[in-house]
Amino acid sequence: MESTIRTLIESRVSLNYYDPDRPVSEAQIKELVRLATLAPSAYNLQNWKFIVVQSAEAKQRLKTVAYGQQKVETAPVTFIVCGLLEAHRQLPLALRPAVDAGIIAPSVSDAWVAAAARSHDGNPVLQRDEAFRSASLAAMTLILAAEGMGLGSGSMSGFDPLALSGAFGLSEAEVPVMLITVGYPAAGNWPQKPRRPAQDVMQYV
Amino acid sequence: MESTIRTLIESRVSLNYYDPDRPVSEAQIKELVRLATLAPSAYNLQNWKFIVVQSAEAKQRLKTVAYGQQKVETAPVTFIVCGLLEAHRQLPLALRPAVDAGIIAPSVSDAWVAAAARSHDGNPVLQRDEAFRSASLAAMTLILAAEGMGLGSGSMSGFDPLALSGAFGLSEAEVPVMLITVGYPAAGNWPQKPRRPAQDVMQYV
Repeated sequence: MESTIRTLIESRVSLNYYDPDRPVSEAQIKELVRLATLAPSAYNLQNWKFIVVQSAEAKQRLKTVAYGQQKVETAPVTFIVCGLLEAHRQLPLALRPAVDAGIIAPSVSDAWVAAAARSHDGNPVLQRDEAFRSASLAAMTLILAAEGMGLGSGSMSGFDPLALSGAFGLSEAEVPVMLITVGYPAAGNWPQKPRRPAQDVMQYV
Repeated sequence: MESTIRTLIESRVSLNYYDPDRPVSEAQIKELVRLATLAPSAYNLQNWKFIVVQSAEAKQRLKTVAYGQQKVETAPVTFIVCGLLEAHRQLPLALRPAVDAGIIAPSVSDAWVAAAARSHDGNPVLQRDEAFRSASLAAMTLILAAEGMGLGSGSMSGFDPLALSGAFGLSEAEVPVMLITVGYPAAGNWPQKPRRPAQDVMQYV
């Protein structure tokens, strides 16, 4: 029986320990990224990039810039989810599939490109906010998609962004937002930690 | 039959038009926030806040700071998802449920609080990044949870953050990250827009 989204959200844990004998296939990795890119983004900017860390050498490189966290080495795969600055410049490319499918008219695409250029050009704070927003929305989609495929994940913001950018040759326009380790769980992981009651973080207006 | 997470991700659209005759119940709203708070956050900071905009007066106030976007008025409810700065100061409160449940030892909680204070104190860029990251992870969880409940949503970053903070009396430590309108769809919404191929946004290392 397939799990419901509620069950997946309620049962998800952030893994620290992975089964070293159960790899994640290329097909699974590509499907995770495909589903992640179905997350929403402003103007459908799709201002994200996924670096798939699998080789032993790249894992060591990543571990060094992630404060030595062991799970980067033991997880079969880690995604470096990046957000993109200056994403408005590639917006025509991002919208082309929707134009080609006849879902939005070329004039709509042109209007969105113009609007995005007006708001993003020379506005580094907005660009960075959009990069973090879009990359995190895609990251959460990937995390829940992994749950749906029977995999587990561990998301990490514990890394040195500048060192990571250097180690993986990121451009100035590529901001590392999150690491997501993915694989099958081993024994010893924490259960899901209970949260503050919902009513304590809500306000009605 | 319940939908699978894959189906929900593949069928989600960003709504512009809502059925004005189908409200969203208080129980649904609270459940959406409860599920959103099960998203991961660094140290389990839970550095988010959800403002639930339902009254006609508050909708008008929000519409004004959201560039007049009509869906804020026509959707039954809009969540202003905020990220919190200085979240390390409330980390003991955020971790208490996990300590009380015996999942993490008090010494672990103390160590995380100390580590979060070291990394966050006097580091406004990291605090803002964490606020955007956590709030966006929670937002995406809320969006997919809504799909699972048969609702639809529209996420928006098109608002004036400073004006919104003023209009809703946010503190300096509360950053509005995203608006999510939620309700049942009316006719006339766009289908999901196709994305760039996954392989175009991936890099293997």
